[in-house]
Amino acid sequence: MFQHRSIKHCRACGGATVYAVPADDNRDRATCTVCQLVHYENPLNVVGTVPVWGDQVLLCRRNIEPRHGFWTLPAGFMELGETTEQGAARETDEEAGARFEMQGLLSVLSVVRVGQVHLYFRARLLDTEFAPGPETIEARLFREDEIPWDELAFRTVRDTLKYFFDDRRKGQFSVHCADIA
Amino acid sequence: MFQHRSIKHCRACGGATVYAVPADDNRDRATCTVCQLVHYENPLNVVGTVPVWGDQVLLCRRNIEPRHGFWTLPAGFMELGETTEQGAARETDEEAGARFEMQGLLSVLSVVRVGQVHLYFRARLLDTEFAPGPETIEARLFREDEIPWDELAFRTVRDTLKYFFDDRRKGQFSVHCADIA
Repeated sequence: MFQHRSIKHCRACGGATVYAVPADDNRDRATCTVCQLVHYENPLNVVGTVPVWGDQVLLCRRNIEPRHGFWTLPAGFMELGETTEQGAARETDEEAGARFEMQGLLSVLSVVRVGQVHLYFRARLLDTEFAPGPETIEARLFREDEIPWDELAFRTVRDTLKYFFDDRRKGQFSVHCADIA
Repeated sequence: MFQHRSIKHCRACGGATVYAVPADDNRDRATCTVCQLVHYENPLNVVGTVPVWGDQVLLCRRNIEPRHGFWTLPAGFMELGETTEQGAARETDEEAGARFEMQGLLSVLSVVRVGQVHLYFRARLLDTEFAPGPETIEARLFREDEIPWDELAFRTVRDTLKYFFDDRRKGQFSVHCADIA
């Protein structure tokens, strides 16, 4: 997870940095006291899926911190060299070992407190054989009335599941852009 | 703009880093040879708006590199401490000095080549008084048949404008998630 003001040394020369507002800027940035390089710190994207099988969705029980033992949708940090959709597919493969085809974007959630944006896509499962990776204790399907709402790992997961089931009832999926306080 | 493999020194201790795959990972990461800190490099978000006045949209002529002198929609890097929508509004204020109210999300475009995701929102202009900041040579309104398609700064701007005018013709706006090669 992102740590604010964690840059103590310059990535180019190793010199000590200070947080100060550069001349043509309006925010504190870690600036090298030796070579003057300015270091920017920006929000990160978390990308994932709502894997769907009939009227069920796939959740994974986390084998890692934070929120070890809680249920989540497959998701993780977007990497360089991939699109949002490719990242979401990669995480679904790594965490659930599922076979699926990607469908539309469902949610874009800003989580300001931790400097993240979470993007979830719907994915249609092609079978019910799952091979979860080391980050997952267990992967299983849940109907809406079986979702362990009080044991979900993150609010972005809860809100995304609510969007999914609400849209499904309406018979029309749309993209939900919102903020998580 | 993001520079791949630009981390030569550890941000915590200033020690030299090497790019190597950490034990529980599958990608090269800059890892400190002294304190072992792993440095992650991830895509950045660019957030902006399509500011609308009747059948016209507001474009800004860039006073900065890259693409100095070309036309763009107001947009820039998302900062910590803001939502995607707040960042888009801030950039619109900074670059165009416009008064507006934010409307829905319009495009989510992965630009893998430069490690970015661009998110554009529609914004309704409240008047036609603009006070462009130092990054803008000129801000003016264009009808669809006046858009300088060959003098647009970026393909994300071109595609977002096309989505906007196409949706407007249909009388229904939606969110367009796509990749820019």
